Amino acid sequence: MKDVAVIGVGCTTFGEKWNHSFRDLFIEAGALALEDANLSGEQIDALFVGNMSAGRFIEQEHIGALIADYAGLATKHIPSTRVEAACASGGLAFRQAITAVASGMSTIVVAAGVEKMTDITPGQTVDTLASAADREWEGFMGATFPGLYAMIAHDYMHRYPLTREQLAQVAVKNHFNGARNPIAQFQQEISIETVLSSSLVADPLRLFDCSPITDGAAAVILAPLEIAKQFTDTPIKVLASAQASDTIALHDRRDISTLDATVEAGKRAFHQAGLTHRDIDLVEVHDCFTIGEICAIEDLGFCTKGEAGQLTEDGVTALHGDLPVNTSGGLKACGHPVGATGIKQIYEVVLQLRGEAGKRQIEAERGMTHNVGGTGATVVIHILGAC
Amino acid sequence: MKDVAVIGVGCTTFGEKWNHSFRDLFIEAGALALEDANLSGEQIDALFVGNMSAGRFIEQEHIGALIADYAGLATKHIPSTRVEAACASGGLAFRQAITAVASGMSTIVVAAGVEKMTDITPGQTVDTLASAADREWEGFMGATFPGLYAMIAHDYMHRYPLTREQLAQVAVKNHFNGARNPIAQFQQEISIETVLSSSLVADPLRLFDCSPITDGAAAVILAPLEIAKQFTDTPIKVLASAQASDTIALHDRRDISTLDATVEAGKRAFHQAGLTHRDIDLVEVHDCFTIGEICAIEDLGFCTKGEAGQLTEDGVTALHGDLPVNTSGGLKACGHPVGATGIKQIYEVVLQLRGEAGKRQIEAERGMTHNVGGTGATVVIHILGAC
Repeated sequence: MKDVAVIGVGCTTFGEKWNHSFRDLFIEAGALALEDANLSGEQIDALFVGNMSAGRFIEQEHIGALIADYAGLATKHIPSTRVEAACASGGLAFRQAITAVASGMSTIVVAAGVEKMTDITPGQTVDTLASAADREWEGFMGATFPGLYAMIAHDYMHRYPLTREQLAQVAVKNHFNGARNPIAQFQQEISIETVLSSSLVADPLRLFDCSPITDGAAAVILAPLEIAKQFTDTPIKVLASAQASDTIALHDRRDISTLDATVEAGKRAFHQAGLTHRDIDLVEVHDCFTIGEICAIEDLGFCTKGEAGQLTEDGVTALHGDLPVNTSGGLKACGHPVGATGIKQIYEVVLQLRGEAGKRQIEAERGMTHNVGGTGATVVIHILGAC
Repeated sequence: MKDVAVIGVGCTTFGEKWNHSFRDLFIEAGALALEDANLSGEQIDALFVGNMSAGRFIEQEHIGALIADYAGLATKHIPSTRVEAACASGGLAFRQAITAVASGMSTIVVAAGVEKMTDITPGQTVDTLASAADREWEGFMGATFPGLYAMIAHDYMHRYPLTREQLAQVAVKNHFNGARNPIAQFQQEISIETVLSSSLVADPLRLFDCSPITDGAAAVILAPLEIAKQFTDTPIKVLASAQASDTIALHDRRDISTLDATVEAGKRAFHQAGLTHRDIDLVEVHDCFTIGEICAIEDLGFCTKGEAGQLTEDGVTALHGDLPVNTSGGLKACGHPVGATGIKQIYEVVLQLRGEAGKRQIEAERGMTHNVGGTGATVVIHILGAC
């Protein structure tokens, strides 16, 4: 297997982008990534795209071909493949692209993620998102994602020390970071009081505990490490790629407030990279809800179960803390266009490792991404390192 | 890259399976494949599943995790990935599985395909299928797949010699084969008169020119060739895997009755395998409509453009002709559960190469599969050979 590097990245701004179609979004992200890698479209050998539910959001399937076509690559007849694992679709697209390059099957490969979520009503969007859970045993019973993550939060708070204020601090921190990220959907700092006084969505989760509904796209370009310097002075090496699954329904889990797929994929990633937790300088975790970030930090092994609330309160996960978590603003403040999120995480870590993260720049040589589908039925983890 | 072999196959019967859910279907196909390979589920390292639109057919996304879970593999936390390219989803799942094994990333890998199409109304099904075409420029303008393939047929018949009777003969031949296939949706032989007197769907295509709406699932198991004999006496070697894309909208093509993605993927596959057309003993082509089979035979290079009608009339593509096409009955008579079709094609070629095709058995050492998404925006081709 060849070593693989990221040689270019691009991302649209995230938000309710009424004036941009699905097609506009991925073309913009792809063009930015090509420009960043000093490449023309003609040099692309293959394309993988993560998308959760264009079938329901915009009544369009066959997304791989659509993207190759609208990117102007149809006449070259390149292979273009959509992968889907709900909100982990982007991370999986990145993983397939790594495999294609590492195996020698392709040389220059684009991994993209895109979602256009605001063309249907909010109610339809919530129901579409519920199709990431077990439709027969959860969705048809009325469970939505805020409800499912609220159950995780209740179970967690019953068993471990976590105050309502500590949970709110996750959102406060991520909004602080988002306010320093020009692509973020929310550019405002908030206080704990903002979170605690916001509308109750599903007890104990309030509006500001929840990631928003977002339109956006992100793209990254991969190449064999051995030729990466032909395209960029700052290639970023892929140190590990790990994927794990779990039961799709939350109630079937061994423990509903520990995501075993995160635990397992995390172990595999550290093993593959030959690294320990101390070697990781930043982590982008899947904070679709604030409780998601608390669980992720623990399930990845950065602290023991029950400690992440205190860690957050103490500022360890803050922008200039010992372990910065979600410097992009996370799903919470940067936004969560579901199929694009996994690629945006890669985008953020690459910017940080290159020293191009502007007002939110930290010192970092190695970063991790943690992308979750559903309530943890799919988890994809990557570790990237500066060369 | 390691050589890869198919070590087990399984397929449900195809049809309107009112008493079987989506979950039932893939469990049945997977269990049959495991039994065929003398494997237990515990030995599976990774899973790829092709599915076009469970989001719209059964309101369920996150199909990879769902399948791993209901197959009893959740506790092993194996990677499970859904790929989608409309009706070519199955072929792409097979291709991803090949890459996973060939690269050394995984050892024993399942490639499955599944679609449950009859849980919604026929009108909704037709509209869901239209999401494989360009929604903005085709679907929203009222174009459905019978309409799009009718345009291909009109263009073809205007430019090349093809009689209405020759076109009907494609369906007659495929029903003859389907009548010898115990999994086929249609087990009845038909005559040219049956086709010509059936309802007009989209001129010149009549009801019996069209593949049906079908529920079904198929699964195959792959392993490195070097260990394949541990599981089966008759491993089938993967000789080539090729994929190509084209414009998603038919009207944007250079030539609407030549599928350039078929031409291109076909060339790549023959090149990869180091074989010529004479080396291929049977082909499963994507006959979603009778005209699709005519174009496929020519675009794959088995004859020159305009000859396939006469070839069909002469019986060359018949079960015991010089080049048997669609011995399974094809999409036309075996049925077309869209995400499963690409895997069913592999299933059929494997049975033929093993000598296990019963009443439709032919003499064959090498077979090809040709799986199309949309009107040819994605094409996936595989060549398999007996060891």
